[in-house]
Amino acid sequence: MNFLDELKNLKEQIKIKNRFDINFDFDNIVISGMGGSGVVGNIFQEYYRGKPVITVGDYGIPDFVNEKTLFIGISYSGNTEETLDNTEEAKNKGAHVVGITSGGKLETMVDNKIIIPSGIQPRSALGSMLMPLYNTFNLVSDEQLDGIYQTLDSVDQNHDEMKNDAFKIYENSYIPIIFGSRPYKSVAYRWKTQFNENAKTFAFYNSFPELNHNDTMPLKSAYRRDEYLYYVFESDNPRVNQRIRITQEITGSQFNLIKSPSDQYFNKLFYLIHYADYLTYQLALIRNVDPTDVSTIEELKQKLA
Amino acid sequence: MNFLDELKNLKEQIKIKNRFDINFDFDNIVISGMGGSGVVGNIFQEYYRGKPVITVGDYGIPDFVNEKTLFIGISYSGNTEETLDNTEEAKNKGAHVVGITSGGKLETMVDNKIIIPSGIQPRSALGSMLMPLYNTFNLVSDEQLDGIYQTLDSVDQNHDEMKNDAFKIYENSYIPIIFGSRPYKSVAYRWKTQFNENAKTFAFYNSFPELNHNDTMPLKSAYRRDEYLYYVFESDNPRVNQRIRITQEITGSQFNLIKSPSDQYFNKLFYLIHYADYLTYQLALIRNVDPTDVSTIEELKQKLA
Repeated sequence: MNFLDELKNLKEQIKIKNRFDINFDFDNIVISGMGGSGVVGNIFQEYYRGKPVITVGDYGIPDFVNEKTLFIGISYSGNTEETLDNTEEAKNKGAHVVGITSGGKLETMVDNKIIIPSGIQPRSALGSMLMPLYNTFNLVSDEQLDGIYQTLDSVDQNHDEMKNDAFKIYENSYIPIIFGSRPYKSVAYRWKTQFNENAKTFAFYNSFPELNHNDTMPLKSAYRRDEYLYYVFESDNPRVNQRIRITQEITGSQFNLIKSPSDQYFNKLFYLIHYADYLTYQLALIRNVDPTDVSTIEELKQKLA
Repeated sequence: MNFLDELKNLKEQIKIKNRFDINFDFDNIVISGMGGSGVVGNIFQEYYRGKPVITVGDYGIPDFVNEKTLFIGISYSGNTEETLDNTEEAKNKGAHVVGITSGGKLETMVDNKIIIPSGIQPRSALGSMLMPLYNTFNLVSDEQLDGIYQTLDSVDQNHDEMKNDAFKIYENSYIPIIFGSRPYKSVAYRWKTQFNENAKTFAFYNSFPELNHNDTMPLKSAYRRDEYLYYVFESDNPRVNQRIRITQEITGSQFNLIKSPSDQYFNKLFYLIHYADYLTYQLALIRNVDPTDVSTIEELKQKLA
C-alpha cells in the first residue's frame, strides 16, 4: 500500500466490528500506549466519561492498578518497549489485561486481544485501534458508522483546501500551532504528531479554554508572532466559540478556523483527524520528504535495543 | 510585594501545614483548575498514584463523579469561571467537595476549604496550592521540607545561570522547547506557562519517552531547527537518560540539560519549578516587559463577563 492508500484505508478501518467482552465489574480503566497508538486512549478518554480512564504514555503504571482495573495495552507493532513493560506490570498486579495490536510480543503476552491488520504505518491504523474501544462500550451505532463513512469519503474526494494550506506553510516556513477543545483536544495533539512524522516539521498544540490562561499573552506580545500558523477547531460549545472570537480580537491574531461539516461527535472527530492526514501528507510532498519515513525513530530504537 | 519578592515567597509557602481531613473511603479524585491553578493537580497526579486522579482543565466534569468521588476545586482568585462551574456540578452530583483558594466565590461555595494568602499573582502561589495536597496524603516529612527550603534558598542566592540563558534567548529570539519526563512532565508545562505569562513569549513542551515517537523526526529534519532552544530535564530513570543521550546524538541537537542538585523528588520538583521562575523573570526584564502584567488575559475575562 502506498501512503495515499493508507490514508484512504481509514474508511475501511471504521467498519471493524471487533469488541472486547468485558464480563466483570471494573472500577477504572488504564490505557497504555505511545505515540500513534497512545493518542487512541486519549481520544477515547475525552469522550467516554462513565468510569475513570487513566492514560499512560510512559514507563510505569499507577500503584492503584489491581484486579478491579481494566488494563488496555495498545501497540500497533506489538513491540513498543514502554507498553510491553506496562502490560507485564499490569498482569503482575492482577489487572484484567486486554490488548490491541497487529502482532509482535504483545500478541503473545495477552489472551484477550484484538488483532488488527498489519503492514501499514502505526499512525495510519488509528481507526483500527480506536473502533474496538467504541464498540466495547456500545458507543457507536450503524447509522453513525454510515455518517463517518460519508464524511471520510468526502474528505478523500476533496482535499484541495489542505493542499493550499500546505503550500502556504511551506512558502513561509510557518510553525503550525493547533488549538483544540474537548472532546477534540487529543485530535489537536494528533495534528501535531502528523506534522512531526509525515512532514518532519515541528508543530505545537494547546486547547481552549486552557490557553486563555497562558498562550493568550504571547499571542499578543511574543516575538516571531508572524512565523506561526494558527489552526483552531470550531467548538460545539458557544462559550468556547466566544472565547475563540474574543481571543482573536484582543490579540490581533488571525486564526484558521477548522469547521467540521457536522457537529455529530463521530463525524467531527474523523473529519478533524482526516483533515490533518491530508494536510501533512501534502506538506511532505511539497517539502520533498517521504511521508512514510520514520528512520530517525527506528534508528533510536535500534540504538536502545 | 514586588515580583522578585513573590518569587522568593515560594520558600515561605512550602511551610504551610494545612491539610484536608478526609474521613471517608473515596474511589477516585477529580481535581479541577485552570492555568497556574490547574498545573497543581497535574503535578500532584504524577506523584500520587494511590487512587485514580483525573484532572479537569476545562468546562464539565466526567459522568462518573458521585458520592465516592473526592472533588478538589483549585482557583487562586476563587473566581475562575470554569472551576466554579465544575465545583457546582460536583456538588450537584453528590461528590465530597473541597477547595483551595484565596477567596472569591469559591470560598463561599465550599465548606471544607483551605484559604491561602491573597495579593500575589496566581502563578506565584504554586507552593501554597500544592502543599495542602501533599499534606493531606502525608507525602512530605519535616526533613523533606528542610531539604526543599535549602534548595529554594540556594536558587534564590544564585541565578546567574538563568540570567545568562535569558540573554541568550533574547539575543536570538529563541523559541524555548522544554522536554520533561515523569514525574516532572507537568513541570515542563509550568515552564511553558511561565514563559507565556512572565516573559510573554511562546514556549512549548513534550516529554521523554513520548517525544521519541514524534518530535524526534523534526529534531532531525525540520526547517527553523536553529531557532529553538531545547531544555531537557535530566531524569532519574537511566533508560530515559539513555534516550536523551541517543536522541541528541542521532538528531544532531544540542540539549540544555537541567540537572537538579538532588534527585530526591521534592527537592528536584521545586528546583525545576524555581529555575523557570527566575529564567522567565529575567527574560521579562531583558525584553523590557512587565512580568506581572497579564492585562490581555484580564481583558478577555472582562469581555466574557
